Amino acid sequence: MSKNIIFAYRDKEAKEFINNIRSSRALALYVIGSTLTSTIPGISIAGASPSATLYTPSLDMEYLILGRTLSRNTIPITPEGIPTPAVITRAILKIANIPYLIINAGSYLEPKVPSIVLPSRRVGGLISKCEGLAKGVASKILKESEILGKTISKGIDVVIIGESIPGGTTTALGIMVGLGYKAWGLVSSSGPRNPHKLKERVVREGLKVLNKKLKKSLFDVIECLGDPVHISIAGLVKGLISNGVKVILAGGTQMGAVLAILKPLNTKIKGKLVIGTTKWIVRDNSSDIIKLISMIYDVPIIAFNFDFSKSKYWGLRYYEKGYVKEGVGAGGTAIAASVINDVSAEDIIREVHEEYSRLLSMGGLHGEGKTY
Amino acid sequence: MSKNIIFAYRDKEAKEFINNIRSSRALALYVIGSTLTSTIPGISIAGASPSATLYTPSLDMEYLILGRTLSRNTIPITPEGIPTPAVITRAILKIANIPYLIINAGSYLEPKVPSIVLPSRRVGGLISKCEGLAKGVASKILKESEILGKTISKGIDVVIIGESIPGGTTTALGIMVGLGYKAWGLVSSSGPRNPHKLKERVVREGLKVLNKKLKKSLFDVIECLGDPVHISIAGLVKGLISNGVKVILAGGTQMGAVLAILKPLNTKIKGKLVIGTTKWIVRDNSSDIIKLISMIYDVPIIAFNFDFSKSKYWGLRYYEKGYVKEGVGAGGTAIAASVINDVSAEDIIREVHEEYSRLLSMGGLHGEGKTY
Repeated sequence: MSKNIIFAYRDKEAKEFINNIRSSRALALYVIGSTLTSTIPGISIAGASPSATLYTPSLDMEYLILGRTLSRNTIPITPEGIPTPAVITRAILKIANIPYLIINAGSYLEPKVPSIVLPSRRVGGLISKCEGLAKGVASKILKESEILGKTISKGIDVVIIGESIPGGTTTALGIMVGLGYKAWGLVSSSGPRNPHKLKERVVREGLKVLNKKLKKSLFDVIECLGDPVHISIAGLVKGLISNGVKVILAGGTQMGAVLAILKPLNTKIKGKLVIGTTKWIVRDNSSDIIKLISMIYDVPIIAFNFDFSKSKYWGLRYYEKGYVKEGVGAGGTAIAASVINDVSAEDIIREVHEEYSRLLSMGGLHGEGKTY
Repeated sequence: MSKNIIFAYRDKEAKEFINNIRSSRALALYVIGSTLTSTIPGISIAGASPSATLYTPSLDMEYLILGRTLSRNTIPITPEGIPTPAVITRAILKIANIPYLIINAGSYLEPKVPSIVLPSRRVGGLISKCEGLAKGVASKILKESEILGKTISKGIDVVIIGESIPGGTTTALGIMVGLGYKAWGLVSSSGPRNPHKLKERVVREGLKVLNKKLKKSLFDVIECLGDPVHISIAGLVKGLISNGVKVILAGGTQMGAVLAILKPLNTKIKGKLVIGTTKWIVRDNSSDIIKLISMIYDVPIIAFNFDFSKSKYWGLRYYEKGYVKEGVGAGGTAIAASVINDVSAEDIIREVHEEYSRLLSMGGLHGEGKTY
């Protein structure tokens, strides 16, 4: 198992965590939500066009559960045609013995598969206009997700929490900067050319509005520069950890925003939480997850060593060129499957290829065959 | 443990089932939904007034999770002031180690606590007008709940499925009669005076419309005389059992409707499913669960032996006089807690009293002190 896992930061604690969750009872949660911020051209390639990014979270979940989408014709792809990381997550969940649930924190479209809804779910607004969430919504979502975390924690040892929110690294940057961290230039991107300048401009515009306030609470920051997903994940973590459950935050640099929210809430996460991500994130030259996370909350970072470099499929080889990198909890789900169910990297890569070939035969992938 | 449990029907199989689920991994699901049928005066006392019954499912769930309601001031009570059986279920879940989730199949009000939603959820119409569910909805709900059952079945051995749907025995009667069973006069009631004649009149009115159709599919029957909850439970059972999970149908006579739906779907439930209910149901003189169930699907019936006859609280003593009887999976949840967590009847009764006294101190129970 261990050979598939890269202990990227705080090795000793990371290994201890991994040893503790072997043959434990796991549950995976995938939190989805939308922010209009993803429709700003250039911010997100988690969809074929800026407006298509609004449909991505629901399409990801329909595909994850059913193997096909219901709300639109195809699974989410980048403008180049590279498929969503949900392909990886679905392949893993097929061979792992991990139950999973979807949590809708504010998806633009309600997925056409069963999902847990937070009563105060809401699509996020443009953070450039300081409209992250409507007034009063952040605290409600936090409470509701904390309750959910507590309710589902019985009989569970470890929970993997993934996300699907296009524009998420930009709102995460907003949350971290708004809460006082020098996160500029450190978040990753789903594209090989990380649009740091654009992200910074978007956040700075919202920040200008926020800074006119004399006093800024945690919720003021989220409601200006945040989104529905990161606050929901923070609430889940709070509820789960209060009941003794361990957590794998299954995502890249944006999980820094979750940690930044947890900090003022005084959640004791030491020894109880790790970040589980992909090789593509920890080896990314255009971002720095270790520098980012270590300045917020010194938690271990673990990465799964996927390797698609020899794939016969164009759409998977492009993952090795800096496209997509992470999402829908791909890295953390792989780590959990590997540790808990003894699934090997070879098993996962074979299953991803089978899944990819199935999608191709369904006609759901139009990029394959391109040569650029 | 066994002394709290009444093996009411098919003892041998029932005992085998119980032995098989000892120290297994359990999950409880509470399926909620509304039908306008409950607003027909006299049909349901699961609410302070006929129209209040529409709010009962969501209030039950808010109270179950939070210990208080958010959408209205008080927990659901009968017109006499007797509290919802959610009081029993909540008390059990507090001391049992069973995780649980709410499934919204079509509640009039969305509960203000996290719940799983079925994408095609819908409030049911008046079955007297043959408007149980809109055209096409029953098959969609069945598919969605079956998918949900499959998704959550990993790592789980047994699932307890309870319900909260005022008017549920009337729509259950409709479903059973519509599917060809002579269920007249056999369903129970939440009141001591079972309004069989009224229920029969309501069902016969709808049946008249249905019988004008030459061919009647399962879904035609549900969409005329059914509701969103029983078809959802059937779908869950189908999905769960197909993945090898055992099921406790936690409810009274209305679970006959679930069995009647499962029959034409060819679900192999032999040895995999029991009905888990309360003493008040199996000893009810105004209904006959054994006669009813045995004519549909010969499954074991198990009951938990609650005894509130010596309670210092009026609202609990009235349970012994034929009020309420069952609901929110009270009986099946008690059976599961007893078998899986070794919780005794004494523990449960003590915890119910603590919960009741807490509600009284919150001012949530207005009936207490009445002498009728």
